[in-house]
Amino acid sequence: MSLPDVQALRSDHDYKLTRVGVTGVEKPVQIDRPGASQTHALHACFDLFVDLPAGQRGIHMSRNLEAIGEVLDETVREPRKGLEWVVEDTARELLERHDYASVAEVEAESTFFVEQRTPSGAETMEPYELVAKATADREGDLRRSIGVVVTGMTACPCAMETTQHILEDEQDATIENAPSVTHNQRNETLFMIDVREGNDVDAEDMVTLVEASMSAPTFELLKRGDEARLVLQAHESPRFVEDVVREVLARAKKAYDHLPDDTVITVKSEAQESIHKHNAFAERVTTLGDLRDGDLQTDN
Amino acid sequence: MSLPDVQALRSDHDYKLTRVGVTGVEKPVQIDRPGASQTHALHACFDLFVDLPAGQRGIHMSRNLEAIGEVLDETVREPRKGLEWVVEDTARELLERHDYASVAEVEAESTFFVEQRTPSGAETMEPYELVAKATADREGDLRRSIGVVVTGMTACPCAMETTQHILEDEQDATIENAPSVTHNQRNETLFMIDVREGNDVDAEDMVTLVEASMSAPTFELLKRGDEARLVLQAHESPRFVEDVVREVLARAKKAYDHLPDDTVITVKSEAQESIHKHNAFAERVTTLGDLRDGDLQTDN
Amino acid sequence: MSLPDVQALRSDHDYKLTRVGVTGVEKPVQIDRPGASQTHALHACFDLFVDLPAGQRGIHMSRNLEAIGEVLDETVREPRKGLEWVVEDTARELLERHDYASVAEVEAESTFFVEQRTPSGAETMEPYELVAKATADREGDLRRSIGVVVTGMTACPCAMETTQHILEDEQDATIENAPSVTHNQRNETLFMIDVREGNDVDAEDMVTLVEASMSAPTFELLKRGDEARLVLQAHESPRFVEDVVREVLARAKKAYDHLPDDTVITVKSEAQESIHKHNAFAERVTTLGDLRDGDLQTDN
Amino acid sequence: MSLPDVQALRSDHDYKLTRVGVTGVEKPVQIDRPGASQTHALHACFDLFVDLPAGQRGIHMSRNLEAIGEVLDETVREPRKGLEWVVEDTARELLERHDYASVAEVEAESTFFVEQRTPSGAETMEPYELVAKATADREGDLRRSIGVVVTGMTACPCAMETTQHILEDEQDATIENAPSVTHNQRNETLFMIDVREGNDVDAEDMVTLVEASMSAPTFELLKRGDEARLVLQAHESPRFVEDVVREVLARAKKAYDHLPDDTVITVKSEAQESIHKHNAFAERVTTLGDLRDGDLQTDN
Repeated sequence: MSLPDVQALRSDHDYKLTRVGVTGVEKPVQIDRPGASQTHALHACFDLFVDLPAGQRGIHMSRNLEAIGEVLDETVREPRKGLEWVVEDTARELLERHDYASVAEVEAESTFFVEQRTPSGAETMEPYELVAKATADREGDLRRSIGVVVTGMTACPCAMETTQHILEDEQDATIENAPSVTHNQRNETLFMIDVREGNDVDAEDMVTLVEASMSAPTFELLKRGDEARLVLQAHESPRFVEDVVREVLARAKKAYDHLPDDTVITVKSEAQESIHKHNAFAERVTTLGDLRDGDLQTDN
Repeated sequence: MSLPDVQALRSDHDYKLTRVGVTGVEKPVQIDRPGASQTHALHACFDLFVDLPAGQRGIHMSRNLEAIGEVLDETVREPRKGLEWVVEDTARELLERHDYASVAEVEAESTFFVEQRTPSGAETMEPYELVAKATADREGDLRRSIGVVVTGMTACPCAMETTQHILEDEQDATIENAPSVTHNQRNETLFMIDVREGNDVDAEDMVTLVEASMSAPTFELLKRGDEARLVLQAHESPRFVEDVVREVLARAKKAYDHLPDDTVITVKSEAQESIHKHNAFAERVTTLGDLRDGDLQTDN
Repeated sequence: MSLPDVQALRSDHDYKLTRVGVTGVEKPVQIDRPGASQTHALHACFDLFVDLPAGQRGIHMSRNLEAIGEVLDETVREPRKGLEWVVEDTARELLERHDYASVAEVEAESTFFVEQRTPSGAETMEPYELVAKATADREGDLRRSIGVVVTGMTACPCAMETTQHILEDEQDATIENAPSVTHNQRNETLFMIDVREGNDVDAEDMVTLVEASMSAPTFELLKRGDEARLVLQAHESPRFVEDVVREVLARAKKAYDHLPDDTVITVKSEAQESIHKHNAFAERVTTLGDLRDGDLQTDN
Repeated sequence: MSLPDVQALRSDHDYKLTRVGVTGVEKPVQIDRPGASQTHALHACFDLFVDLPAGQRGIHMSRNLEAIGEVLDETVREPRKGLEWVVEDTARELLERHDYASVAEVEAESTFFVEQRTPSGAETMEPYELVAKATADREGDLRRSIGVVVTGMTACPCAMETTQHILEDEQDATIENAPSVTHNQRNETLFMIDVREGNDVDAEDMVTLVEASMSAPTFELLKRGDEARLVLQAHESPRFVEDVVREVLARAKKAYDHLPDDTVITVKSEAQESIHKHNAFAERVTTLGDLRDGDLQTDN
């Protein structure tokens, strides 16, 4: 008895599907970043999709696992230089294995570690979230995104001004050459860049850019002097989530002036407010072209 | 000393922001669904955003809390008939309170309970996730979305055919008038409808529609006969996640034939595969108009 | 054909089991707190367990759903005065329905809302997590626990001292009659009391006690003056997580002086550090008796 | 000006604390398992605690980060053979650095990958959760725990019997030499062993033991024949969560007959029921000694 290809049958309802695939596929991935002293081993979680035309009942889901498996096997011989290259190659593989599909989409998330230095120069290994995404279509169009989520610190500019006012007016306090107290909190900021083939950005550079856009970076290991200096730094650069997003945009415009106008930039900043039970949030999705035109002038 | 309005100052960088606001605001909400025997008390979690023009440093975030507070205070006197009406009114309030904003967006999530009957007719209270969203702009355009996430059961059509083949060929088994064994699993399906003002859909109807689109619904309380009947029902309607999405689309096209062509429909189905550590997933985002045109013919 | 009771069969392996049951059962619960102006509707999530002796293969899990269903049905006629009474009654029901079990255990979690006042006296509805637990055994012994998780704010005493030192010594700053800057952050503190039958504690009182033990409470809606006063309050009471736990213990010892010595007290405080990516944590599990004896003297 | 040691001051309230430390510390860890072809790179998340006597205000939390940092630095020169050895060494370091503490406790979680073979012999890389824990005290007592969480499949024995009855009696169906249909689902089982110094267990062996205790293991990549064989295997070994826990206990008793009586064994099995929205759960916490005595006889 020969088995029918159940997935290849006609569906009861002739509707195409936007995305069909598998989610939550966990894999170890070897990365060989140029300039890095060693191969990085990431633990990444993948989602892999293709579209499905109206005339066919289902996709052959095991092919998604074969596609990611083959790309990862290749990386043993020839490590990719970033997670974004792994998802790009996997998207291409998906299109080859699903001949009925017109688009393939792959997303991956991981944590990566960067050796940083505290204000006093001590070495500390800091974790950041890494996001990579690629879409490939039959016409050969390919987009690749790389993003980082950075945990840092923001100090509120508004409360700082109000507390100074209250202290001086009502409590007869004197504060000279020093910042006033305010609420500060943990902030998580996503910075994502979406490039076409041939262009390249480095995740570690993106981390540096985001950390400079907050009131202060955070570190896992801080001795007492470092801790105080970080607190002072944060109070000298008090920032709303709105400020953080705009700082990232301004720095991205400068840092990525070699990338084309259609490069998409996404920035989201969320502060786990210390004086509220809810979070504060700001977001901008735009292109380098729009940032270059200047928002204020063009009202883009 | 008079305090400057820090948020109203010019920003260092003249970029507008897409969305600024607060996330994770938890509130008790009174709902009075027409036809329901009693007022429902929901515990909902809100996200509230407006856009911010380039010329201004920040939004006044406490106004978002005032907006949701005022709408919820009103519901004490005059209960809204669904969570989607609460978010719509709140979006309108946000625009009034942030005169610099051109768009307001409110999202809310909650769990609601529906009294269902098991195959044998026993009553059981079942939980479903509820999602509501509204956007309002200065031109008076208003869109309101209502969605449900339903937990049900899918049985795999492909493995059922293969096991029957193996059993009959290799194990000399006889299976007549009965389904063969297959893997089945917990499935979560989101069904969301996005309507313009003046149109209305009922969340409980949407739950009924989604449950009928799976291999079988699930219940919290099942005595032994009910459990077996549900298992048999699932094996008589084996369905891929692709099938579930298309069933929902077909039923939505029929059930909502009074809604306009530009009504947006989103369906996502995710199966927590019992034979894999990852999930299977299918999705379609479309409009009622496209579904009416017929996907296969128009290749929409 | 008569069906065997599969669960009542002997197991292949004669080992008793510590806990067998169901987890993640979501239910709406009506609560009628004495003194409260209205019935509270909670959305609670239950775990329900019994032990299983070595001689029997399985428990009849549907009886756990019947037990919680029956108790909740009764609350329609006669509302319980707290979630802890619901779990206590359910634990008793479980023992009745599983005659082979010697112990029953029920846990529930929910969010509840309390109307609070900000420093300036504005009303605001604040969410808190509620935890309830009960164990009942065949000998009639019954323990009932009630806990709250409160989100508040802590300001670091150590960094405050170091920044003042740096500012005055290195930056020639003058700070008089005012606190120096420090890092502050969102803190979540659990306070749980475990009582025997006949004793009673009120969840809202527990919230008040925990909020007074932090550097400052947090509020969902704060106008500008309130925000600044809260920031100042936090800086006037800088506290480590260790301080928060001990404050709760000291206040609990005083507030619950009518409860017996064997009352178990659990306090856990976790600060989402604004200068680190990790959290700071402190915990004490003890009895009122040990607190009364005095820790330092007895080295308990 | 010399800074006071704020943490070393007396507290306002003289209560000792059970556990004080840091949670959620993310670190890359190099592991060199004996017999493994390569060094494993884990991404682990650590919690690190010591106790705090009544006479002291706070612990010096940065020492916890120094302790884990030093142990991980050492692993670059001399890789540990498992995550449990890393936490053990870190617990010892904590005691050295906190001279006021009498107990140190370290927990870590990670995902690790094992190359497995599907029924047809195809290679597939499967993810498992890894848990390690160590406690060390001033008397030199040291306990070390290693645990795995395995995702597999269970098929319900009870529904299988009932559906066969219904099919044969009511639907005139014939089923010979074949299993009847039932509900099956994703199952997550934790197996943890707690040993004293000098004893050793292997995480990969523990995975093998747990997978053999379920109705069937799960795999990321399954071609059609493999999928069907796995489904048949599950239906030939239908198991309750109670059965899974007892199978693990029976196999553990046999596999670890060289370990002492006071070895603590924890087994928890949770099934994400496909016919319910809640989960089924069974647990046993015991010692190898109790398992050896025989539960039924001794009623332990």
